[in-house]
Amino acid sequence: MFGMRQISSAALPLPCIKFRIKQMADSLDHSLKVNVSIVTIGDELLIGQVIDTNSAWMAQELNKAGFWLRRRISVGDSKQEITHALDEESRYASVILITGGLGPTADDITKPVLCEYFGGSMVIDEGALANVKSIFSKLNRPIIERNLKQAEVPDNCTVIPNSRGTAPGMWFEKDGKIFVSMPGVPHEMKGMMTDFVIPHLQQFFTLPFITHRTLVTFGIGESFLAEAIADWESRLPVHLKLAYLPHYGMVRLRITGSGDNKRLLDDELNQEFGKLKALVTEWLIADEDISIAQVIGKMLLRGNATVATAESCTGGYIAHVITSVPGSSSWYKGTVVSYANEVKQRVLDVQKETLQTKGAVSEETVRQMVNGVRKKMQTTYAVATSGIMGPEGGTTDKPVGTVWIAAGNAKHTISANFHFRYDRARNIEMAANYALNMLRQVLMEDGISLL
Amino acid sequence: MFGMRQISSAALPLPCIKFRIKQMADSLDHSLKVNVSIVTIGDELLIGQVIDTNSAWMAQELNKAGFWLRRRISVGDSKQEITHALDEESRYASVILITGGLGPTADDITKPVLCEYFGGSMVIDEGALANVKSIFSKLNRPIIERNLKQAEVPDNCTVIPNSRGTAPGMWFEKDGKIFVSMPGVPHEMKGMMTDFVIPHLQQFFTLPFITHRTLVTFGIGESFLAEAIADWESRLPVHLKLAYLPHYGMVRLRITGSGDNKRLLDDELNQEFGKLKALVTEWLIADEDISIAQVIGKMLLRGNATVATAESCTGGYIAHVITSVPGSSSWYKGTVVSYANEVKQRVLDVQKETLQTKGAVSEETVRQMVNGVRKKMQTTYAVATSGIMGPEGGTTDKPVGTVWIAAGNAKHTISANFHFRYDRARNIEMAANYALNMLRQVLMEDGISLL
Repeated sequence: MFGMRQISSAALPLPCIKFRIKQMADSLDHSLKVNVSIVTIGDELLIGQVIDTNSAWMAQELNKAGFWLRRRISVGDSKQEITHALDEESRYASVILITGGLGPTADDITKPVLCEYFGGSMVIDEGALANVKSIFSKLNRPIIERNLKQAEVPDNCTVIPNSRGTAPGMWFEKDGKIFVSMPGVPHEMKGMMTDFVIPHLQQFFTLPFITHRTLVTFGIGESFLAEAIADWESRLPVHLKLAYLPHYGMVRLRITGSGDNKRLLDDELNQEFGKLKALVTEWLIADEDISIAQVIGKMLLRGNATVATAESCTGGYIAHVITSVPGSSSWYKGTVVSYANEVKQRVLDVQKETLQTKGAVSEETVRQMVNGVRKKMQTTYAVATSGIMGPEGGTTDKPVGTVWIAAGNAKHTISANFHFRYDRARNIEMAANYALNMLRQVLMEDGISLL
Repeated sequence: MFGMRQISSAALPLPCIKFRIKQMADSLDHSLKVNVSIVTIGDELLIGQVIDTNSAWMAQELNKAGFWLRRRISVGDSKQEITHALDEESRYASVILITGGLGPTADDITKPVLCEYFGGSMVIDEGALANVKSIFSKLNRPIIERNLKQAEVPDNCTVIPNSRGTAPGMWFEKDGKIFVSMPGVPHEMKGMMTDFVIPHLQQFFTLPFITHRTLVTFGIGESFLAEAIADWESRLPVHLKLAYLPHYGMVRLRITGSGDNKRLLDDELNQEFGKLKALVTEWLIADEDISIAQVIGKMLLRGNATVATAESCTGGYIAHVITSVPGSSSWYKGTVVSYANEVKQRVLDVQKETLQTKGAVSEETVRQMVNGVRKKMQTTYAVATSGIMGPEGGTTDKPVGTVWIAAGNAKHTISANFHFRYDRARNIEMAANYALNMLRQVLMEDGISLL
């Protein structure tokens, strides 16, 4: 089965024994699993110039479809490295998904390497050629030899159409294993996975039913949470598995179940999920896998209310996470990012005197920002941030990481200060999450609840 | 040597031969390289709940220090998988850097697995214990058994202090290979790498000098760029390597050189970089590895000017990328995100009539937004966006992906419309980059140039 029981360390007297028990659980698992490996190809991954976001997305999709991602590996644009990786991963997995190295430039060598690896020779694929021509004609760009080469494929693969780009995907089968090569460009890969690869893989295998339920907590550390649920966790059945996923002030708890009988599994999972919910009520902000911006959106829709933000130190990041939620325009009016003090005065009506006597990073300022933006944008609620994110700008009184946050409506406003101790990017993310959580608290005080 | 020559496909008549030549270059390389593998551990990576940002950062740091990252692999929290990965990677690399699985919860098993793998037994490390106690005392939180266990380490490792968290790092040596285990929490790992791991690794090896030079282009596709520089690229010396790094309308070109004589290498690299620059002048926006927001910042500082933004469809994302640049407060005043039409009227002074007759997504609206926010925030320049990002909201006239952008100062404003054809997140990133590039064009028209 996909999942294995997590052994609580409380139950284990000897430090090195934990994995032995886990190991035994592991050995039970493989009968039902269809193992998948992801091989990402590109020197840019090894030089660190790009962050691999493809693998996480692919993992989620594979998981939803009943597959188990066993390993992920990244290698450079080199025949030897690619060949080793394919040899190795085919020992671990039944399906090897390959991304990257299909571009039109000289550093992209995946296609000729696969051509040789699977013993084929290159031919022009008419469908892929028509696709390349159609894309260039739509873009109104001249087509060059280099682009036409995109339509070449090994003659022993099944061509996977690319509805979003010029490089076709390739599906190979060898010694009972399936190898699929896709472009590294995220939206092209996603289109192929969704339209072709997942549905075709599902036809090949008898898959277990895999299901997840996730809840989200805010304001409690991973280890304290683990303590609070230790007894329940240690009694989880072996085919249900718990994962802790901490992220900027929040911890997500996900139970994953695996089995052949969908109804029985769902019943059992729902029962355990109910028990878990009851244990973490105090910190629970959602009983589904959504972001805190989505939590706020659902609450505001329920309360038929709207919100605006006034951001100084978060610099538009709160607005960005909110507006990344499709449909947020029905409850979010906008933000004023007042990076300059005169903007706080002129656009947000913060009093000059407050800025002079208390400073921009002060309780009084954020409370005035809340009222200012709420009136300006005529919303029910508003939330505001002001702080020092680093690396420069700290003082003895207000060191880097000091943030004031306020949230409120026409009747009441709450405010608090925080000290985040990370780098600039993480301080901004932390402040954004704490600001949204403070807004959530105001909404709860007004009787608007999600749970 | 680290780098290898990129063979231009133009020079190769046979489709499958390219990698054979590359392969020969590969075989020259390994004498000087110190190969490193990164092993990231955690079921969350295989289920896709988190995106691995650590590996890219580590790769950059390793590269700067003269190491070559050969492979990256992710495996689950399982003894068998971890052990296989360590066995395998030690065949490929002299240094194996391991992150993750050191947390206090039951699913974290890396430490006991390493304890057994290297044949040690667990002991309390006094330094790590004092660190755990000090952290909890600063947080004013009670300490529990689970936290104290963080101070346990195998007795055959060198303990790496963790200045930012409770889990100590571990440095093992076995059969001439170095294995380093670090927490998966990014800022904890980064602290350890910078303060301990990189400096200690540098003492172990005689390293080649590795150096990079990067330039940034905007508005030309990867394949056209490749065509424009094909002759130059095919004549690059074997120890200089070119990489294409496309990203949302931009392509970065990076030359990496490797050698023993720093001065000679630098001279040679600078010479080739100069030639490359001359070939791509038309599309060049920076001759160093900086973001387009940093380009704008440098230009504004040079022109002693400031900017504000007015964002509709980009929803604060432009403000976020700008304010992620440390020091941006000296040239950036803020943004108004006007997600609602009434905010466009009330805060940005867009005429009601314009919104009614032309619509929010129109040339007239974005030009009024530019003027409105520029006056409101009293800046030299402003840039504005309005569009339909999807997945909903498109019409026949204005399909999803339609974006109007304007940028200008008191004297002149330019504007253009775009059709992005991706998902919501990517459309937002594309629009932000094109908006910043339009601002760059206005600055250039005013005689402010970076290059």
